Amino acid sequence: MNITHIEHLGIAVKSLQEAIPYYENILGLKCYAVEEVVDQKVKTAFFKVGDTKIELLEPMETDSAVGKFIENKGEGIHHIAFKVDDVARSLKEVEEKGVRLIDSAPRKGAEGLMIGFLHPKSTGGVLTEFCE
Amino acid sequence: MNITHIEHLGIAVKSLQEAIPYYENILGLKCYAVEEVVDQKVKTAFFKVGDTKIELLEPMETDSAVGKFIENKGEGIHHIAFKVDDVARSLKEVEEKGVRLIDSAPRKGAEGLMIGFLHPKSTGGVLTEFCE
Repeated sequence: MNITHIEHLGIAVKSLQEAIPYYENILGLKCYAVEEVVDQKVKTAFFKVGDTKIELLEPMETDSAVGKFIENKGEGIHHIAFKVDDVARSLKEVEEKGVRLIDSAPRKGAEGLMIGFLHPKSTGGVLTEFCE
Repeated sequence: MNITHIEHLGIAVKSLQEAIPYYENILGLKCYAVEEVVDQKVKTAFFKVGDTKIELLEPMETDSAVGKFIENKGEGIHHIAFKVDDVARSLKEVEEKGVRLIDSAPRKGAEGLMIGFLHPKSTGGVLTEFCE
């Protein structure tokens, strides 16, 4: 596995409409896309900062993963996504080293990327995603 | 204010000794420094990934900020640090726009950087640091 950089950081927010002005007007970043990821029941907004994206995640339903995260922990950083060459191979590689997976095979995420999640029980509490 | 990239991500861990092998042996990143930041009552371990560092934070005392974070929320991503040109000016700029600050003036952080924290009440729950 070869991690080249942090592809994005997922940040759980209650409302994109309320969160976007903070990132644009206070931090001076530019929202370049808003997208619904129906599979994950979230609306996302993207910002680029260096070689990393910030991906705001607004739950479309309270019983979604992000909705439950906000209910339990409040708004805040939800996950970190590492860019890898090959998600399928990387998932297999870490699984063989004893890491528990959420996704045993890659699936389609936002921006058409192939993604796979590792379980935070195996990663020191950090919900971790591989994407390519 | 000009944010060029995410300088580092702070991740709260109970034990560097237990966390470092995950980052090195599973993710294949290399720990290039371990440092005590007495001021913040943490021991830190650094990894470079793209233009961002991962900074593991082990509390030296349970009543430290990171110790309380782990007690309340468990291990996980603790803060995001943006690289800015001028911390003092950036803090002043966001304060004038209504952001509540933790540090009204820059102070010295890990790796000899000047740093300043914004309050998560003003940043959608994301503990946010500026550093230069």
